[in-house]
Amino acid sequence: MSDISTANGTWSGRFSEPVSDLVKRYTASVFFDCRMAVQDIRGSLAHARMLAKQDIISNQDLSDIERGMSQIAGEIERGEFAWRLDAEDVHMNIEQRLTALIGDAGKRLHTGRSRNDQVATDIRLWLRDAIDTILALIGEFQTSLLKLAEEHAATPLPGHTHLQIAQPVTFGHHLMAYNEMLRRDAERFADVRRRVNRLPLGSAALAGTTYPIDREFVARELDFEEVCENSLDAVSDRDFAIEFCAAVSLAMMHLSRLSEELILWMSPRFGFIDLADRFTTGSSIMPQKKNPDVPELVRGKTGRVNGHLIALLTLMKGQPLAYNKDNQEDKEPLFDAADTMIDTLRIYADMITGIRVKAENMREALKLGFATATDLADYLVKKGLPFRDAHEAVALAVRAAEQQGCDLPDMPLEALRNCMVHVSGAAEKLADDIFGVLTVEGSLASRNHIGGTAPEQVRAAIARARARLAK
Amino acid sequence: MSDISTANGTWSGRFSEPVSDLVKRYTASVFFDCRMAVQDIRGSLAHARMLAKQDIISNQDLSDIERGMSQIAGEIERGEFAWRLDAEDVHMNIEQRLTALIGDAGKRLHTGRSRNDQVATDIRLWLRDAIDTILALIGEFQTSLLKLAEEHAATPLPGHTHLQIAQPVTFGHHLMAYNEMLRRDAERFADVRRRVNRLPLGSAALAGTTYPIDREFVARELDFEEVCENSLDAVSDRDFAIEFCAAVSLAMMHLSRLSEELILWMSPRFGFIDLADRFTTGSSIMPQKKNPDVPELVRGKTGRVNGHLIALLTLMKGQPLAYNKDNQEDKEPLFDAADTMIDTLRIYADMITGIRVKAENMREALKLGFATATDLADYLVKKGLPFRDAHEAVALAVRAAEQQGCDLPDMPLEALRNCMVHVSGAAEKLADDIFGVLTVEGSLASRNHIGGTAPEQVRAAIARARARLAK
Amino acid sequence: MSDISTANGTWSGRFSEPVSDLVKRYTASVFFDCRMAVQDIRGSLAHARMLAKQDIISNQDLSDIERGMSQIAGEIERGEFAWRLDAEDVHMNIEQRLTALIGDAGKRLHTGRSRNDQVATDIRLWLRDAIDTILALIGEFQTSLLKLAEEHAATPLPGHTHLQIAQPVTFGHHLMAYNEMLRRDAERFADVRRRVNRLPLGSAALAGTTYPIDREFVARELDFEEVCENSLDAVSDRDFAIEFCAAVSLAMMHLSRLSEELILWMSPRFGFIDLADRFTTGSSIMPQKKNPDVPELVRGKTGRVNGHLIALLTLMKGQPLAYNKDNQEDKEPLFDAADTMIDTLRIYADMITGIRVKAENMREALKLGFATATDLADYLVKKGLPFRDAHEAVALAVRAAEQQGCDLPDMPLEALRNCMVHVSGAAEKLADDIFGVLTVEGSLASRNHIGGTAPEQVRAAIARARARLAK
Amino acid sequence: MSDISTANGTWSGRFSEPVSDLVKRYTASVFFDCRMAVQDIRGSLAHARMLAKQDIISNQDLSDIERGMSQIAGEIERGEFAWRLDAEDVHMNIEQRLTALIGDAGKRLHTGRSRNDQVATDIRLWLRDAIDTILALIGEFQTSLLKLAEEHAATPLPGHTHLQIAQPVTFGHHLMAYNEMLRRDAERFADVRRRVNRLPLGSAALAGTTYPIDREFVARELDFEEVCENSLDAVSDRDFAIEFCAAVSLAMMHLSRLSEELILWMSPRFGFIDLADRFTTGSSIMPQKKNPDVPELVRGKTGRVNGHLIALLTLMKGQPLAYNKDNQEDKEPLFDAADTMIDTLRIYADMITGIRVKAENMREALKLGFATATDLADYLVKKGLPFRDAHEAVALAVRAAEQQGCDLPDMPLEALRNCMVHVSGAAEKLADDIFGVLTVEGSLASRNHIGGTAPEQVRAAIARARARLAK
Repeated sequence: MSDISTANGTWSGRFSEPVSDLVKRYTASVFFDCRMAVQDIRGSLAHARMLAKQDIISNQDLSDIERGMSQIAGEIERGEFAWRLDAEDVHMNIEQRLTALIGDAGKRLHTGRSRNDQVATDIRLWLRDAIDTILALIGEFQTSLLKLAEEHAATPLPGHTHLQIAQPVTFGHHLMAYNEMLRRDAERFADVRRRVNRLPLGSAALAGTTYPIDREFVARELDFEEVCENSLDAVSDRDFAIEFCAAVSLAMMHLSRLSEELILWMSPRFGFIDLADRFTTGSSIMPQKKNPDVPELVRGKTGRVNGHLIALLTLMKGQPLAYNKDNQEDKEPLFDAADTMIDTLRIYADMITGIRVKAENMREALKLGFATATDLADYLVKKGLPFRDAHEAVALAVRAAEQQGCDLPDMPLEALRNCMVHVSGAAEKLADDIFGVLTVEGSLASRNHIGGTAPEQVRAAIARARARLAK
Repeated sequence: MSDISTANGTWSGRFSEPVSDLVKRYTASVFFDCRMAVQDIRGSLAHARMLAKQDIISNQDLSDIERGMSQIAGEIERGEFAWRLDAEDVHMNIEQRLTALIGDAGKRLHTGRSRNDQVATDIRLWLRDAIDTILALIGEFQTSLLKLAEEHAATPLPGHTHLQIAQPVTFGHHLMAYNEMLRRDAERFADVRRRVNRLPLGSAALAGTTYPIDREFVARELDFEEVCENSLDAVSDRDFAIEFCAAVSLAMMHLSRLSEELILWMSPRFGFIDLADRFTTGSSIMPQKKNPDVPELVRGKTGRVNGHLIALLTLMKGQPLAYNKDNQEDKEPLFDAADTMIDTLRIYADMITGIRVKAENMREALKLGFATATDLADYLVKKGLPFRDAHEAVALAVRAAEQQGCDLPDMPLEALRNCMVHVSGAAEKLADDIFGVLTVEGSLASRNHIGGTAPEQVRAAIARARARLAK
Repeated sequence: MSDISTANGTWSGRFSEPVSDLVKRYTASVFFDCRMAVQDIRGSLAHARMLAKQDIISNQDLSDIERGMSQIAGEIERGEFAWRLDAEDVHMNIEQRLTALIGDAGKRLHTGRSRNDQVATDIRLWLRDAIDTILALIGEFQTSLLKLAEEHAATPLPGHTHLQIAQPVTFGHHLMAYNEMLRRDAERFADVRRRVNRLPLGSAALAGTTYPIDREFVARELDFEEVCENSLDAVSDRDFAIEFCAAVSLAMMHLSRLSEELILWMSPRFGFIDLADRFTTGSSIMPQKKNPDVPELVRGKTGRVNGHLIALLTLMKGQPLAYNKDNQEDKEPLFDAADTMIDTLRIYADMITGIRVKAENMREALKLGFATATDLADYLVKKGLPFRDAHEAVALAVRAAEQQGCDLPDMPLEALRNCMVHVSGAAEKLADDIFGVLTVEGSLASRNHIGGTAPEQVRAAIARARARLAK
Repeated sequence: MSDISTANGTWSGRFSEPVSDLVKRYTASVFFDCRMAVQDIRGSLAHARMLAKQDIISNQDLSDIERGMSQIAGEIERGEFAWRLDAEDVHMNIEQRLTALIGDAGKRLHTGRSRNDQVATDIRLWLRDAIDTILALIGEFQTSLLKLAEEHAATPLPGHTHLQIAQPVTFGHHLMAYNEMLRRDAERFADVRRRVNRLPLGSAALAGTTYPIDREFVARELDFEEVCENSLDAVSDRDFAIEFCAAVSLAMMHLSRLSEELILWMSPRFGFIDLADRFTTGSSIMPQKKNPDVPELVRGKTGRVNGHLIALLTLMKGQPLAYNKDNQEDKEPLFDAADTMIDTLRIYADMITGIRVKAENMREALKLGFATATDLADYLVKKGLPFRDAHEAVALAVRAAEQQGCDLPDMPLEALRNCMVHVSGAAEKLADDIFGVLTVEGSLASRNHIGGTAPEQVRAAIARARARLAK
C-alpha cells in the first residue's frame, strides 16, 4: 500500500524491502473493490462526523474532509479518478487522494478505525443496496408473472409429474407456482438484509479503539439497525455474504426450473409457447434456428452462483479469529452473485411479457396421457369404492384404452365396465355421468380449494399475491 | 411398491412386468425414510380426522384408522415393525400394515391425498422437530460459553490477525465472538422454521383434489402456521431443505473456526488450553500422544455439510414442475446434516465446560508481538500527531525493538524517542506517562465502548446475552 | 479404542479419564470402516509376512497370526464377528480379536506400523477393487450401448441443439456420443488407479519406523505398483479419494445427460422411446402413470456425488501435515460415491437393453424443425455462393415456409426462389436436384467423414469401439 | 450477432425483431472469450488450409484469408483491434473484420464448420497452452523446494499429527512431502492434457458436414493427438474443462496446506520461519504487524477454484445433447482457474526461496512433546516386549514425566523403570543404552528406509526427484 508512507517504497519503517510487483498484483484488490467507492466515502463521512462530534478531530478537519470527499466523489462519478495498483485497495486510494487534496486532516480520518472494520462496513453498505435492488426487481418480475397468469387462469395445460402427463392444470396455476417461489426468495433476501444491516465500524482492527467513539451515532447516520456487539466477530464475520449467496443460489435454482420449462415448451414437439424474437438468437450454420439463448444462459448461471456459495464457505472454513487476508477473496464471488441475480431478474421480468402462449397445443397435448384418470378413480370412490381398489380399476381401464389407442372419455361405458371386472364392485358403479367428470374443464373446476387448480382458485391466488405486492 | 396391489407382482394393472430386484433396491427409500414414521402417522391421523369432519370417510373409518395407527406406532416404538423393501417407502409400509390390521378403512385413508403431498408434509414435520432440537442445543452451548467467558472476562490473551499478534484482548471477549455467531445461527434457524412450517397436504399429486377438503383444519391439527398456496409448488418445493442445509453449513463453519482455535491453542507451542481427557484420544503407536480428536472431527465435518448443501442445490437444478423422482434424494443429505448439527452442538456444549485455561501461557505470549504498539500510536495521536505519522513513528520503534530483542515497554524513553526522529513532531510528544499506556491491562481497559474488549464491556455483553437467552 | 488396554477404561496409562459415550460414538468409525475388513486382513498378513522375513517377528508368530486371521475372516464372512463400538475402528476390532485368539503374537502384529499407514493401505486396497468393478461395468454398459446403436445405425432422429431441431442424425450416432463419454470415464478411472496403487505402509505414524522393514516386499505381496516415497505425505494424502470422486462426478454427469434424454424421449409429446416396465413405477394416486423413476434417480444422484467431491475437497483444505483426525471423514463420501457409481452402471447396463425405440415418432418429429435447412445452404455454397450469403438466403426461405405452415421440401421450386430474391445470386442457383438434398436420408448420408452421422460412419465407429473393448 | 448480416439489425432474415440491448449484454461473450483470439486465428488458418487442400475453397481464397488474418493478429497484438459487443463473440468479431478486409473469401471461411466446433477447438488450444505453462511452473516450484529441502535434509523439526508433537522429522523431509504432492499434480495435468488434445473441428453444428473435409490433416496442423470420434459428443463435451478444474482444485488444496503451515510457522509462538518482507504486508492501524498475506490469499483462493469446479459440474448436469447455450458459461470459471493456478505457482516458486529457517526454534520445540516416546517403545519391543505392552509402559512413563515437568531423556533410569512396574516385563528391559535412543539425532537416523525421515533417505529422495525433473 504505502507507496507514499515511506521514502524507500516499503510498507512502513518496519519493513526492509518493498513488496514485489508480482506480490502487489496478487494481493491488490483495487480493481474489484473500487466498486465500493461510493459506500467507502459514505462510511468515511459518517465516521468523520462522529469524530468531530466527539471532539476527536476538529470541526475544521471535518469540513476539510467533507470538501475533499465531495471532490473525490465527483472525480469518481465522472470517471476521472486515477485508481492506482500501488495504493492496493479502494480505501487507500481514496485516503491518499484525500490527503493529497486537504493535507493533515486527511491523515486524521483513519483515527479510531482500521481497514478491517472499514471494509466490513463498506461491503455491508454495498450489499444492502444490492438487496434493495433485488427486492424491487423480484416485485417487477412478480407483477409481469401475475399479469400472464391472470390471462391464463383458465387455460388448460397438461400438468406433469416425472415429465409424464399427470392431471390437467391451468397455465395460470402453473405460473403461480413460480410466484410462490419468488415470494419465498423475497422473504429470504429480507431476512438476510436484517443481518447485513448491522454496523461493524468501531471494532477497529479487532479489539475496539481507545478513542471515545459513539457507534450508535454512526449507525444512525448510515441507517444501520444495530451495532455489531463484538469487535473480533465484527471484523471477521462474513456470514452475510454467504447467506446472501445462498439466497441467490436458491433464487437462481428456481429460475433454472422455469428456464428448463421455457426451453421444453419452446421445443417443437412441445410447442406450448414462443419466446419473443428479441430473446432468441440464430445459428452461424443452421439458417432455420431460433434458439432460447436467454433461458439457457439462466439455467447455466445456476452453476456460477452455486460455485460462489461454495467458494465463500470454503474460504471461511477453519479460519482462526480475527481478520485474515483470506477474507479479501469474499468480494469477487459476492459481486458476481449480485450482478447475476440482478441481470437475470431484470431480463426475466421483460422476457415473461414476451411469451406467446399456444393454448391449442397445450390442449392437444392433454389428449396424450389419460390426464383425467384420477378423476375417474375419485368418481368411483365417491360412489363407495375404497380408494386403493378404485386406483386398480382405473389402471386396468387405462391399459385397455392404451391398447385400443384411445383416451378414456372415448371409450363406451360398457367397454369401461368390462375392463374393471376383476376389481369387485367397480364396474357397477359407472354410469353415464362419468363423461362429465372426464372432461378437462370438469377436472379443473373440481379442484376447488385453496391451492387447487380450479380457475376460481387461481384468480383468488392472484388477487392475494397482488395485495401482498401492494403493501 | 404395490406387491400387494396385484396378484402378479406388478405395480398395478397397467404394468406388464414387475420391477426387478435391482430396480427395487435402487428406487426404494424405506431404509432411510422410515425415520419419518412418527411424522407420517401424525400426518395421516390429522388427514383422517379432516376426512371424517368433512364426511369424506365415516366416523367408524376414522376410529378404525386411529386404532390401527396406535397399534402401528407401538410396533415401531418397540422395534417390532417389519419394514419391507417390497413396500418401497415408509408411507406404503405403514398403509399396507394398516390395511392388514383394519381392512377397507385403511384403503380409504389415502383419499384426497397423494404420496407427493404426504412426503412433503412428513419431511416438514420431521425438520421442524429437528430445528427445535437445534435451537435448544444452541442455547445450551451458549450457556456453557457465557459461563466460561465470564470467568475469563479479564484474562488477557493475544488477539491475532493473520495469526500474528495484533493487540491484547481478553479470553472472555474472544469467546463472546462465538456467542455472536451462535446468535446469528439461531436467528437463521428460526427464519428457516417459518418457511418449513407451512402445510403442503391437500395438494395431492400436483393439482389439488376433487374432495371437499379443509386444509386450514389440517394445518391447525399439525401446528402449521400457514398452508402452501399453490399445489404444484407445494409438492415440488424443497427450498426448506436447502435453506436448512445452508444454515447448518454456516453454523458448522463457525464451529470449524472454534475447532481450529482449540487445536491451535492445545498445540504445545501455543499451550493456551487443555481439553479434558474425555475429549481426546491417543495414538496406536506413539504412547505420549493426546489428540484433540473431537475438534478435528468437527472441522472435518464442515466438508460433509457443505457437500450436502451442494447435493441438494444440484438436485433441484433445472427440474421441470412438478414432482420428479429426483426429489427422493433430498432425504439422506437432510437427515445427515441435521444429525451432524445436533451431535456436534451436543458434544460442544459439553466440551466447552471441560476446557482448562492456561492463563499464564496466554500472558507470556503477549510479550512476543509488540501487542501494544497501536496504543503507542494512539498516544501520539492524542498528543496531536496525525494518525498516519504516528503509525510510521511506531513502526520505526518496533523495528528498533526487534533488532534489540526487547518489547516496546522495555525500551528507555530516550531510546524510543531516538527511533522516531525521522518523523517530524513525534519524538517530543513522548513522556513518562507512556509506560502506563503500554501495559496489557491499560490497553485492555482503554477499549471501553460497546463491542470493545475492556473487561467492563465484556461483562456487559455477557449480561445482555444472558437476558436474550432468558427470553 | 483401548477398552482392553487398561483396567480403568482409559485410552492408555497417560489418560486420567475415559472418553465419554457421546465422544465414543462421535469419534468411532467401526460402523462404516468395517467395510474394509477384508482389505485390513489382507494388508496385515502381508505386513506380518514381511516382519517374519526380516526376522522382526518369529515364524511361529507369523503362523499364529495367519491362523488367527483365517478364523477372523471366516467369522466376518459368516456374519458372526461381533463388531464393537468400544474398539473404535475396524483395525482395533480385528487386532483385539486376534490377540484374544492367539495371545502375544497378536500384540506383535502392530510392530513397525501405525494406524495412520494401516488405514491408508486398507482404503487404497478397497478403492482399487472398487475401480476394477467400475471398469468392468463400464465395459458391460458399453457393450449394451453398442448393440442398440448398431440396430439403429441408420434410424433417423432429429438432432437437437438448444432443444430446437437442428439437423437429422441417426439414433445410433446419438448413442455413440455416450460411448465416447464412457470411454473417457474409463480412461480417467484407469488414471486414478495408477495413483491409488501405491503403498503407504511402512510410513508408520508419520516418519517411518526404526525396524528394518522391506517395503518393496509388501508392495509385491499386495500388487502395488510403487511405494509412496515420503512418509509424511503417505499418511496424510487423500488425493486418490478426491480424484476418484471427481471421476465419479464426471461419469454421473454423463449419465445425468442420458437420463435427461430418456425422460424427455419418454414424455408423451416426444414419444421417441419406451422404457421396459421393470424400470418404471406408478403413482399412488394417478392410475395411468408410468414413471421413468430410474433415470430420474440417476439424474438426482448427480447431486449426491458432487456433494461428496466437495466434502472431500473441503475436508483437506488447509490441514497442516501430517495425519489429522479430520481424515476419518474421508470414508463415508468415498464409499457412497463408489456404491452410487457401481449401482448406477449396473442398472444402466440392463436398462439400455430394455429400451423400445419408436422410430416412426422420431421420423415424424423431423418434419417440425426445417431439419435440412443447412443442407440447402450447403447446396447453394457448392454452387458458388459464399456461405454467409447462402445462410441468409435460406433463413428467408425458412421464414416463408413457416408462414405458409409447410416444410422446405414441400415448397415448389419457384416459391423457394422467390424467397431469396433479396440475396443477390441465390435464386438462380436453385435447380430441381435440390429436392434430393432436402430428404432426411440424403442429409444423413452426406455427412460421411470420421465423426459424422452417415450410417456408414456410425457402423465404422461401432466397429472401432468393439475392437477397443476387446483388448 | 449479425448486426451486419441484415439491414434491419435482426439475427437473420428469419427474425422479426433484433435482440434487445439487455439481451445483447446478457448473452455476449466477447469480453471474456476475446482471450482466445490467438487460438481462434490459429484454428481458422488450419481450417482454411484444409479447405484449400480439399478444393473446397480456392488457393486465392486461402491466401486472402492468410493475409487478412495476419493483419488482424497484428491489430490484436498491438491493442488496436476494436472488439464490438454487437458482434457477440470472438469468432464473429474476427470473421466480420476479416470479411471487411478481404471480402467474399472471408465469407467462405466458415464453410464446413460451425461456431459449436470452432469454440470447442479454440478452448482446447487455449487450455493446452495453459497446461504447458502450469507444468513448467510446477517444475520451477519443485526446483526451489528441492534446494531448500537439501539445505535442511538434516535439520530437526517436530513432526506433528493432530498438531501435537509426534516424532522428530527433518525439515527437508517435511518439504519433500510437498514435492510428492506436486509430482502427482503434474501427473494429473499431463493426464488431462491427453484428453484436451483431441480435435473437435469437423463436427460442425452437431452432425458433421457435407463437405469433403480432412480432419486428420487439421489435427496434424494443430498438433492434436487424435480427432474426436463423435460429432454430437465433440460439440457438447466439456469434460476437459471439468477435469482441469478438478486438477487445479487438488493442486490448490495442496498449496492451502503448505500455506497453512507457513502461516503457523511464522506465528510468533511457533517462530519456525520468517517470510521475506516482500511477501508480507503491514496493517493500516497496527504499526508492528508483518502479515503473511501471500500464503493467506493462497489458502483463500482454494475456495475460488472449488467454486469453479462446482460451477462447471452444475452447468453440465442434465443437459440434453448436443450444444446448448449454457455451455458458454464454461469459460469464465476455466480462465479464472487457470489464472489462479498460474499466478499462485509463480509466486510460490519465488516465495519458497525467501524463507528464512529458524532451526533453533524448531529444535527448542522438540523438547515440548515427548517426541521420542515411540523410540522408547521400539527399544522395549526390540528387547522382547510385545508392542502393545511397550506402548502402555511408555504411556505411563510419559504421564510421570509430565507430572514432573521434564522430558523423557531427563529422567534417571531408575525413575523410568519405576513408572513401568505395572506392565510386567517392561522395567527390567531398560538399560543405559536407552539414552542414545532418546536423542533427536538418534531417532531421526534410525528411520532409515525408503520414505523414512533419516537424513540419508531424504537426500536420496531429493536425488531421485531431481533425476525425474531432469527428464
